[in-house]
Amino acid sequence: MTDPVTRTPPRYRLVDCDVHPITKHGLADLRPFLSTAERRRLGLDERRALTATGHREAVSIPRNMLYVNPAGVLRDDARAPDGSAPGADPLFTARHLLDAHGIDRAVLIGGEVLGLGAMPDPDAAAMIASAYNRWLAATWFDADDRYRGYIVAGAQDPHLAAREIRRAAQDERFVGVLLPLTDLLMGQRHHYPIYEAAHDLGLPVAVHPNSGEGIFRTSPPMAGGTPTYYVEWHSGLSQVFQANVISLVCHGVFERFPGLKVIITEGGLGWIPDVMWRLDKNVRGLRDEVPWVRRLPSEYIVDHVRFTTQPLPEPRRRHHLHVLCEIAHAERTLMFSSDYPHWDFDDPRYALTSLPESIRQRVSSENAIETYGDRL
Amino acid sequence: MTDPVTRTPPRYRLVDCDVHPITKHGLADLRPFLSTAERRRLGLDERRALTATGHREAVSIPRNMLYVNPAGVLRDDARAPDGSAPGADPLFTARHLLDAHGIDRAVLIGGEVLGLGAMPDPDAAAMIASAYNRWLAATWFDADDRYRGYIVAGAQDPHLAAREIRRAAQDERFVGVLLPLTDLLMGQRHHYPIYEAAHDLGLPVAVHPNSGEGIFRTSPPMAGGTPTYYVEWHSGLSQVFQANVISLVCHGVFERFPGLKVIITEGGLGWIPDVMWRLDKNVRGLRDEVPWVRRLPSEYIVDHVRFTTQPLPEPRRRHHLHVLCEIAHAERTLMFSSDYPHWDFDDPRYALTSLPESIRQRVSSENAIETYGDRL
Repeated sequence: MTDPVTRTPPRYRLVDCDVHPITKHGLADLRPFLSTAERRRLGLDERRALTATGHREAVSIPRNMLYVNPAGVLRDDARAPDGSAPGADPLFTARHLLDAHGIDRAVLIGGEVLGLGAMPDPDAAAMIASAYNRWLAATWFDADDRYRGYIVAGAQDPHLAAREIRRAAQDERFVGVLLPLTDLLMGQRHHYPIYEAAHDLGLPVAVHPNSGEGIFRTSPPMAGGTPTYYVEWHSGLSQVFQANVISLVCHGVFERFPGLKVIITEGGLGWIPDVMWRLDKNVRGLRDEVPWVRRLPSEYIVDHVRFTTQPLPEPRRRHHLHVLCEIAHAERTLMFSSDYPHWDFDDPRYALTSLPESIRQRVSSENAIETYGDRL
Repeated sequence: MTDPVTRTPPRYRLVDCDVHPITKHGLADLRPFLSTAERRRLGLDERRALTATGHREAVSIPRNMLYVNPAGVLRDDARAPDGSAPGADPLFTARHLLDAHGIDRAVLIGGEVLGLGAMPDPDAAAMIASAYNRWLAATWFDADDRYRGYIVAGAQDPHLAAREIRRAAQDERFVGVLLPLTDLLMGQRHHYPIYEAAHDLGLPVAVHPNSGEGIFRTSPPMAGGTPTYYVEWHSGLSQVFQANVISLVCHGVFERFPGLKVIITEGGLGWIPDVMWRLDKNVRGLRDEVPWVRRLPSEYIVDHVRFTTQPLPEPRRRHHLHVLCEIAHAERTLMFSSDYPHWDFDDPRYALTSLPESIRQRVSSENAIETYGDRL
C-alpha cells in the first residue's frame, strides 16, 4: 500500500470490474465473426434446414432455466431509446453508467457467454468464445475508450482456450481471461494450459456466477442437493467460489503459477473468513496430503485472489462489515464492481461509503490498477 | 438469557453435544436387536450363502471411501485396554472423556450410522436405524447415567422414520433425532413427517457430517464439482450445512413447525454471517417467491438453529472469533462439543477459553439445557 501521506493520486479514481455487455440479437450478433463453416456448424447461417425435411435450430448457450428471478434479471432502465435489450447499447451504457457515476474504466465481462462452460461440445464452445472476443472488441471497445474487457475462454478444451487467449491478448484492451466454470473445480490440472497462457501474458483469470456451475451437468449448484427456489440458489451461489478457492489452494496452483491472480467476480465476501480459517487449520493437520502447499492458505488467498464488491454484504451493524474487510485484507483484495445492468446493481455512491474510509480508494481503483496492470 | 447477577448455577456445568459411540464389530453388534427376517434381509445371519452357490455378503452402510484422512480418523488413545476399536467401550469412554474433562452429560451421535442417508434401500435403512437405537440404549445408556443420545432416523422413508422416532422416544434418555443427510435438502417436504414427530415430542433434529452428503448419489460433496483431496473435502464440508440452513429457511420449515430446533453438529461457524447476510438481503429482494418467509432469515436462524463448537474457528486474532460469536448470537446458538473420539477432538480446557468470557457458561451447558430440555 502507498503511504497515505506521500501518495500520489491514482491513475483512475473509479474502476468498475463487473459490467455485462448484452448482445442485441443473441448469438446471431456473432455471425460476422464466424467463418462460413463455423456458421453452418453452429446453425447460425441462413439455411433453415440441414436436410430437406429437418428443421434447423441454432446452437444456444445453456442458461439458467431452473431458477427464474421473479424480479427480472436486467434493469429495464438500462434499455437504449432504440428499444434494444437492456445493456445492449455501448453508447447508451457509456452515458447511463460511466458518465453518470464517474467511472474511468469499466471491465466488460461476457453476458450471454457466462454459461459457456455448460456446453458439452468443446469445439462449439471454442468457436463461440473466439467470435465473441472479436465481437466485443469491434462493438464495445471501439465505441468508447473507457471500456476494457475479458477474453472468454472455453475451458472444455484448455489447449484451444490457451491459443485463443494468446491470439486475443494482442489487443491490449483485453485485461484478463474469463473462465466460464464447468463442473471441474479450478485446481484440477485440466485448466493448467489456460493458467499458463494467462500467467505468461500477465492476465488475471476471472470467474463469475453463470449458468454453468453444474446445473446442467453432473453437479447441483449447491452442496448437499438441488435447491428449489431462485432465492435459495442465489443465496447459495457463493459456495461455488468457496469450493474453487479451496481447490486452487490445495492443488498448489499458486505455487505452480506464482504470478497468477484469480478474480472472484460477484461471488460475495462473507465466506472468506470461513474458508481461510478452515483451510489454515486443515492444512496444518493434513500437510502430508498436500505437501506443495508451503504457505498458510490464507496467505495465498491474500496474495493471489481478488474479490469484487457487488453484492456487498449488508449486515445490520456496519462494524461487522469492517471486521470482515480486515479479515479478508480488503485493502489488497477488494475491487469495486456494479454488476450493471443486472437487477441487483450496486451504486458506487452507496456501496463504497459503507466501507472503511481508509480503504475506499484502494477498493475504488488502486487494487484494480495493480491487478490488471498497464493494460487497464 | 438469565440475568448474570441473579442467575442460579445451571443444572450441569459442561455438556458435550457430539460424542461418537463406535461399535465393536460393526453392524454385527446389531444382531441381537434384529428379527430373524431382518438379519436374513441384511445378510447379518449366520448363513454364508443365499443360494447353494452364491457367496453371502453382509449389508454395509456407505462410508467415505473417496477421501482418506492420512492422519487417521479415530484417536488411537481412545482404545480400551481390551484392544477394541477406539471409542467402542462405554466404560472406558466414561473415564477417558467424561471423568477426565468433568463432562456432566454427553450426547451420543451415531458413529457408523452417520452414512445411513446414502443407503438406497429405505427398508434396510429403517431396520438398521431401529436396531441401532435399541443397541445404543442397551449398550451405552445402561453403562453410565451421563450418556444421552440421538434417535437415528432413516430419512429415505419419512413415515417409517416418524414411527421409529415415536417408538424410541419412549426411552427418555433419547434427547433428539439424528437425521443422516441424503441428497435431498432439509427444506424439502419429504422430511416433514420427521419434523412433525420431532416437533410433537419436543425433540431437536440434528445433522452431522457423514458419508451420505451425496458422495455416493447424485450430488458431489461440494458445490461446483468433486474435490480431489481429503483436505479439500474437509475444508468444504461446511457447504452442506450452509445449503441446508438456506433450504430450511426458504421453505418456511420454521413457520410450519414453530417449536422445531435444528442442531448443526460439526458444521463449523465461520459461514453463519455469510448465510445470514445473503439470505436477509435476498429474501428482501425476492419476497414474492417465498411469501411464507415472514421474518428476517437471520431471526429464524437465531431462534431455531443451534451450532456445536467443534471444529472451532482458530483465527489469528481472537477478536475475530469474538465478532463472529456476536454476529451468530453465540450466547443463544452455540453449544460445546468435543467430537470424541475423532482425530480433531477439541479439548474443553482450550476450546472454551478462546470464547468471550461472558458467553462461556451459555456455551458450556446452558444452551444445551435449553435445547434438549428436561430429557438431558
